[in-house]
Amino acid sequence: MESSKGKMARGFLFSALEAAIKKPGRKDLALIFSEKEAVLSGVFTCNRIKAAPVKLDMERIRTGKGQAVIVNSGNANACTGKQGMQDAIEMTDLVAASLGLKKNKVYVCSTGVIGTPLPMDKLRQLIPDLGRRLGKSTVHDVAAAIMTTDTFPKVVSKRLMVGGKTATITGVCKGAGMISPNMATMLCFLLTDISITRSALDAALSRAVQSSFNRITVDGAMSTNDTVLVMANGMARNDVVHEGLVHFQKFSSALSAVTTELSRMIVRDGEGATRFVEIAVSNAKDQKDAERAGFAIANSLLVKAAIYGNDPNWGRIMAALGSSGITVREDKIDIYVNRVKLVSGGLATAKEKEAAAALRKKEVRITVDLHLGHSSAKVLTCDLTEDYVRINAEYRT
Amino acid sequence: MESSKGKMARGFLFSALEAAIKKPGRKDLALIFSEKEAVLSGVFTCNRIKAAPVKLDMERIRTGKGQAVIVNSGNANACTGKQGMQDAIEMTDLVAASLGLKKNKVYVCSTGVIGTPLPMDKLRQLIPDLGRRLGKSTVHDVAAAIMTTDTFPKVVSKRLMVGGKTATITGVCKGAGMISPNMATMLCFLLTDISITRSALDAALSRAVQSSFNRITVDGAMSTNDTVLVMANGMARNDVVHEGLVHFQKFSSALSAVTTELSRMIVRDGEGATRFVEIAVSNAKDQKDAERAGFAIANSLLVKAAIYGNDPNWGRIMAALGSSGITVREDKIDIYVNRVKLVSGGLATAKEKEAAAALRKKEVRITVDLHLGHSSAKVLTCDLTEDYVRINAEYRT
Repeated sequence: MESSKGKMARGFLFSALEAAIKKPGRKDLALIFSEKEAVLSGVFTCNRIKAAPVKLDMERIRTGKGQAVIVNSGNANACTGKQGMQDAIEMTDLVAASLGLKKNKVYVCSTGVIGTPLPMDKLRQLIPDLGRRLGKSTVHDVAAAIMTTDTFPKVVSKRLMVGGKTATITGVCKGAGMISPNMATMLCFLLTDISITRSALDAALSRAVQSSFNRITVDGAMSTNDTVLVMANGMARNDVVHEGLVHFQKFSSALSAVTTELSRMIVRDGEGATRFVEIAVSNAKDQKDAERAGFAIANSLLVKAAIYGNDPNWGRIMAALGSSGITVREDKIDIYVNRVKLVSGGLATAKEKEAAAALRKKEVRITVDLHLGHSSAKVLTCDLTEDYVRINAEYRT
Repeated sequence: MESSKGKMARGFLFSALEAAIKKPGRKDLALIFSEKEAVLSGVFTCNRIKAAPVKLDMERIRTGKGQAVIVNSGNANACTGKQGMQDAIEMTDLVAASLGLKKNKVYVCSTGVIGTPLPMDKLRQLIPDLGRRLGKSTVHDVAAAIMTTDTFPKVVSKRLMVGGKTATITGVCKGAGMISPNMATMLCFLLTDISITRSALDAALSRAVQSSFNRITVDGAMSTNDTVLVMANGMARNDVVHEGLVHFQKFSSALSAVTTELSRMIVRDGEGATRFVEIAVSNAKDQKDAERAGFAIANSLLVKAAIYGNDPNWGRIMAALGSSGITVREDKIDIYVNRVKLVSGGLATAKEKEAAAALRKKEVRITVDLHLGHSSAKVLTCDLTEDYVRINAEYRT
């Protein structure tokens, strides 16, 4: 952890403690605080049923400013009606009071069980504590506190030079199931000390999410709580980054690199997963077809179960392709598992044994060449295992 | 079996034997023959990648006539290129030669593994035998021979009176996984002795499929081989049924009753399923919304895993609804498990225990009342279990 500690974005303080929101035994409440007010941008779930904290953050983010984020796991504060919205507001009020901030500078995120009111008695008691303890926890503690079915905390830091100054981006996220296009059951906090305009931050975030969190799927489900927030506090003291400048490109690439690495961690930690799978669709008629094909394969239970069983059952890939509604010519399709060409011109190549061996590796890449155009897309997913079913059958018990 | 034997559609003869297409130990090749040439109608998979027999049948069915269907399980003859089409044609040629029929009066269906050529040597040897043995098997033998991961054969017969004559419809089908809207990985043969025009038969079939096979889902997958064929041989000697007549309504209802019963059997036999689940969406804004909502819930792995775990985790139903893209008002949604009102106006009713008890029953009905309009839809599905994963991980081994 030392190496990434050394690379932390400046001016952010953390705090995490156990509120026993779902059950005792681990930290489940965390606070992120920026010493200076930060420029803030966010991306939220497209689910038409949104959790109270999502609605509140979407409202507050219009100001483009913020200084603190409180997060809890164990309870999503979703489908909790007016009480849920009051609770979300109260959480931010308590943080604001504790830190002496304006209320609308505080954001809130919740993840966990849907439909159960938050244990506000506990939170009322603990949030002032959380404020007092700022700086006594690390970003890794925050990463651990926001986990639900995750099996490991997820933190990534990257540095870039901006006109002679060093800027750092530190990202932390959670998400292991309900992971789907248009974001995942995930929360992600991107903290950077770069000085940047709001519109440049928006643009960089939108690009980063599009190529990372929007290209992963564990189970095709879309949550009510997905949120990505980025805070830029300017403490790197670089000249303000605007869109269009070289420095913007640099920052945008670095931010995308952070979210891509985090999104790969999410897939690697897919519920019950034993395999990390990249579906690469190439030479589709157009971009939309490439993406649809990628997701159709990545979301096919049959394909995912076959991968789990080390079975290069490419017929299921063909069936998924054909049912996706994209333009296909069966006799043009090539399919590879890692480097083994399993299907050529729509027909078996008799390399099942080699392909089965390739499937046994922890990382599997399935390449589908449609030979129809010039568009391509990559989608990341994992296999479907008995453990996925077990985890989700027993989630609340 | 006696009771449904007594109700068999007249003039159909059957034959079934073991060709050991995938492995030995059971009958996997069957022939259905009508003593009189039949009016024939069909519905085929919407998958853009279609198996050779599907392509051949779609071609032949233009004549609207037929007298025999040969079916095999164990091999889908899909993604088998020109050879696959030659093999499909040869199968029908062999039947035609054996029975003295014109070639284009014979149809062929295959189900099983994709991408492997048929063992034509075996089939060449056995198909003449199959012809000779016509009448030595029952429709139940045919139902057993076409099973893949099915655990029981599926046969339904219904009678109706048509102008003083008794007509019978006998349906036989298979299908346990890859079951999705727009039909299932299924084959279905509907045999009737009614006398009816081709266009009336088309209309009745289309209506029957729409309300039955197109309303079930096991895993959201769409196969390359789905086929429903209906043969009407006129041996009931009723006055020919035309569209618009009262008798047409009667026949259409009876045919829908047969396909509905068969589709329920398919869901009941869903791969690894322990629960039969009906998702009923009511008072949606329009019909499209009602159906989308029903399928979004029925295809949610999280909902299905929760049902398996006896967990009335309605948050997952809300998340599925919200992500389906339909019009929803969170605060209007009511959700019931069987008769237990679990959610009222978008909020928990504190009846989780009662709902959990309801989930323990073999048959579960989840009702979602959107309170927005007057459209409703029912979708049938099953739970998601470790066995589903196991069956599909080990399918080809």
